[in-house]
This record gives sequence, structure tokens and C-alpha cells, in this order.
Amino acid sequence: MMHSIAIHGGAGTLPRADMTPEREAAYRAGLAAALDAGFAVLERGGTSLDAVTTAVRLLEDDPLFNAGHGAVLTHEGTVELDAAIMDGRNLAAGAVAGVSHVRNPVELARAVMEHSPHVMLIGAGAEEFALTRGIALVPNDFFMTDTRRAQLSSVLAGDARPANELSALGTVGAVARDRDGNLAAATSTGGMTGKRYGRVGDTPIIGAGTYADNHACAVSATGHGEYFIRAAVAHDICARVAYGGVTLAQAADAVVMDRLQKMGGEGGIIAIDATGGVVMRFNSEGMFRGARAADGTREILIYRK
Amino acid sequence: MMHSIAIHGGAGTLPRADMTPEREAAYRAGLAAALDAGFAVLERGGTSLDAVTTAVRLLEDDPLFNAGHGAVLTHEGTVELDAAIMDGRNLAAGAVAGVSHVRNPVELARAVMEHSPHVMLIGAGAEEFALTRGIALVPNDFFMTDTRRAQLSSVLAGDARPANELSALGTVGAVARDRDGNLAAATSTGGMTGKRYGRVGDTPIIGAGTYADNHACAVSATGHGEYFIRAAVAHDICARVAYGGVTLAQAADAVVMDRLQKMGGEGGIIAIDATGGVVMRFNSEGMFRGARAADGTREILIYRK
Repeated sequence: MMHSIAIHGGAGTLPRADMTPEREAAYRAGLAAALDAGFAVLERGGTSLDAVTTAVRLLEDDPLFNAGHGAVLTHEGTVELDAAIMDGRNLAAGAVAGVSHVRNPVELARAVMEHSPHVMLIGAGAEEFALTRGIALVPNDFFMTDTRRAQLSSVLAGDARPANELSALGTVGAVARDRDGNLAAATSTGGMTGKRYGRVGDTPIIGAGTYADNHACAVSATGHGEYFIRAAVAHDICARVAYGGVTLAQAADAVVMDRLQKMGGEGGIIAIDATGGVVMRFNSEGMFRGARAADGTREILIYRK
Repeated sequence: MMHSIAIHGGAGTLPRADMTPEREAAYRAGLAAALDAGFAVLERGGTSLDAVTTAVRLLEDDPLFNAGHGAVLTHEGTVELDAAIMDGRNLAAGAVAGVSHVRNPVELARAVMEHSPHVMLIGAGAEEFALTRGIALVPNDFFMTDTRRAQLSSVLAGDARPANELSALGTVGAVARDRDGNLAAATSTGGMTGKRYGRVGDTPIIGAGTYADNHACAVSATGHGEYFIRAAVAHDICARVAYGGVTLAQAADAVVMDRLQKMGGEGGIIAIDATGGVVMRFNSEGMFRGARAADGTREILIYRK
């Protein structure tokens, strides 16, 4: 029994051949900053909710990752963001989808959870709610980077896999267990480059991209969202632990390495069980990820070990 | 093993004392029309997907029920509709949220499933997609009825439970098993009277209000959506059947009569298992519902038996 945290920065990694030492160092630094900030919250006795909020906020602010500032662009060249958060103590949850002017969508999802009677708010209505909570709006331009503009151009030009594409399976997320034994999960994303028609992936779907239940586990997913929704990935992993009598590692293997793989769903998950044990599984080439626990473990990884 | 169908018209029923014979006859007639039309699809060898689409479309068109024409009004006096559909054969799914100009949202959800690479589309983007599929848009006024306008006025005047309020837990849905043994589920709603900020309930959330998996069951839910999302009701019932070694009836009882009840989540579900057996459970005063099966069973009910 220990406090611990795991984070991810998406399952859409560069092919190993394209990864330079400089780029890798930058990604590792971004992951380390989020991981250590989240862990510091737990160390000083903070809640798992605060830890995952802190970690995800830092990943949202880091332009390297596909969430918040640096999110991918839609078909129309705008940014539309989704996020969710869940409290394993009481199954409270908050989610937002299709927001375009909120700097840290994870904080808005948390405000929905804590200060509204609702779980999910979308689009302009979600931003109206943000204003009632005193959350300042930012121009949509705030989120855009030249890298993402170039990726959109490549996609619109018909490139299925544009140069330096890191976004197809891009998401950020965190799961944590605090000293009181409470679990929490949070996930945030800009979705897919060139997405259209108000497409929403698994990230803000409670049970798909995000789920937390003290009696089972907390999960944050990243990958080809449509498959993760159809398989109800985050809840399915928790349900296998709760009803199937398997360990978290076995449940994650069954869902990510078997069920999703057979469906053709690329991606992965980070998860934490009631004892604070961390599991990180992916069926893609890599997954930006890190984990740190009270027993001194600290690892930051990109590709398979 | 048989083909069968179950439908619901929401768990938000009138208190028994307020139900007149005329009103009850009207509700029963609307339920019977949808039930029999869906069952006729199965009788002639049609798919469960076609059966649930047919039943839900009729309930959407019936102004008595809170979906499509006759849906409840938002705080702003508009109508915003949500719907989802799922194919238990291959876990294909489609969902839309916050659409305002599509006559039959269940048909749009099905178009998303069958003709887009996505599962969930929201708002204006979903309507843009509808146009690409040749689905004609209708004015928002099309959906409005005097009854719903009066209910909104009551809610805005501070009435927690306005006269003739049938909408708080209003939703429509259907589940079916066809002759080939395939399961399907569909759900559609206008949400809650006076809803704000782009609020989305459980209906379009795959795993919450709607789920179907041939290996477990198909579920359509109706109730206080926020609780149904947090408990991932539809997927949880299927997971208990798949991993917990319980019957569908036991799983439904555990989720609806125990877990949701303890959380304070009012409402119910209809569900069907791999053999075609139907379960309808609710913890509210009533649930508009009906079921019909190849063995000759046919029932239409409102209150507890």
C-alpha cells in the first residue's frame, strides 16, 4: 500500500528511427516535470485528484503534447479540446468536449465535477459555464503551434502519416493513489489532426478514456479513440478486476493486448490499483509514459522496454 | 433462444394519482405502436439494428415522449437532442449529442456508425455530417410542443417538479435480439427540462446509457443521467454478466436496485440477453415500457406490477 502516480503523453510516438537524442530529451523533460509535480502533491499529503490535475495541467501547457497548448488542429484549422476527470472515492466525474477557449480543459472538467450538478458539458455551453466559474477564456490561437499547422497541411494534402506525426494517438493523462488510498484519473486531448464534424474521441467519455473506482482501479487511456469507446476500455479494465478476479495487469493485458488488438484498436493505458501498483500497457510502437511511487520507483519511458 | 424486443419511454412517469385513463391509453398506444413495429421487423427476419431503429424512430416522432418531436426544452427555450445506437455483433457504435435540427437523431447516430470512421459527433459538426448523408434538417421549432413550453415555464419559475412533469427522467430506447442471435440497443432523448451549458446525459455515452455485446447483453437506460454515467450502467450490467457469472436479471438488480439506488440515481433499464430473455428494472415509481417475444409474450406496462 503506497501512494503513487503514473502519467502518459500519448501512444502516438515517433518511429524509433526518426527520434533524435534532442527530441527524446525534450519529451522526457516534459514527462518528468509533470510526473514529479504530481508526485510532489502526493508526497505532501495532497489528494490523488490534485495530483492528476497538476500533472495533466502541466502536460496541457507543454506544446510537445497533444492537449491544451500545442493540441492538434481540426479540418477547419481550429483547436477543439476534450477532457475528463474522475474521483474513485465516490465516482464523481466531470467532462468537457469541443471546447475552444479554455486554457486548461482538465480544470474545467474538474469544475464541472465539483461545481455543477452535471457530468458532461459540450461546446459553447461548456465555455459559458467556465465563465460562471471565473475561468478566463483565451483566443483559439493560443493553442496553435507551427508544428501542428504543418501537420494539418500534410494531412489535408493527403498524407496519411505526415512527417513528425505524433498526434494520431495523442492524449495526455494521469492516474494516482494518495496516502488515504483514494484513486483518481484524468485525461485531456486535442483529438486527431484534421478531425471533422465535431468528432469526440474516448478521452471525455467516462468509462472509455477515463475511469476511477477505489474498489477496482483508475485508468487513463490513449489511442484510436473510436475503438476505445466501443470497448469501453477504462471501465472494462476496472470491471475485470472487480468481477473477474484477475489482477490489474491481467485485466489490462486482456483488454489492450488481446481485445483491442483483435479489433484493430491501437493505443494503450496507464492504470493504478487499490494498493498503488501501476500498470502501463500499449500495443503501439511506443507510449510516452512515466511512473513514480513511494517505494522509490521512478521511470520515464517512450518505447517498449 | 428466440427473437425478442423491449422498449422504454422513460422512467419519468406521472404519479399514479395524476394518471387519467385517457392519458394512460395514449401512452400505451404510443408504446404499442413502437413495440409492434420493432417486433414486426424481427418477425420478417430483419436485424436487431433495424428493429431498434424502427422502434426508437416511432417514439421520437410521438410527441408524448421526451425525444425528437416533443422533446423537452433547454433553459434557453431550444431543443438539443442526443442519441446512440450499438451493434452487439461487432461492437460498432454511433452517437450524437447536442443536435438541434435532425428529425430523428437515432437515424443520425446510425449514419455515424455506418458511414463515418467515428463513433461520436456533437453539435453543429454532427449536423454538417447529416447534410453530407442527405439527411434533411428541420427547424428547431419542429420539435416543440405547448406541453413542453409550459413545463419549461414552470421550471424557470422555480418549480422543482412542475405539473405533468414527465420529462425529468425522460428518454426512449429499445433493445432487441434477432433470429440470427445478434443484439442491438438504441437510445434517444431531449435531456432534462431547463438544461444549460450544453449538458449531455448518459443517453449518447456508449457504456452509460447504451451498450450491446452479443457475448453479454444489450442495454438501454433511462434516468438521472449523471448517475448513469458515473456508474457506467449499461457496460457495468454487461460486464457483470460476462465476468461475474450472474444472470442478466441479477446483474440488472445489482446495478439498478442496489448500486444506483445507494448513489441516489433514479431510473431504470431495459436489457436483453444472448438467448433473447428480456429484463426491465427500475427504482423509480414507474417506467414506460413494453416487451414482445417470439414465444408469444407481449406486455406494455407503466408502473410496478
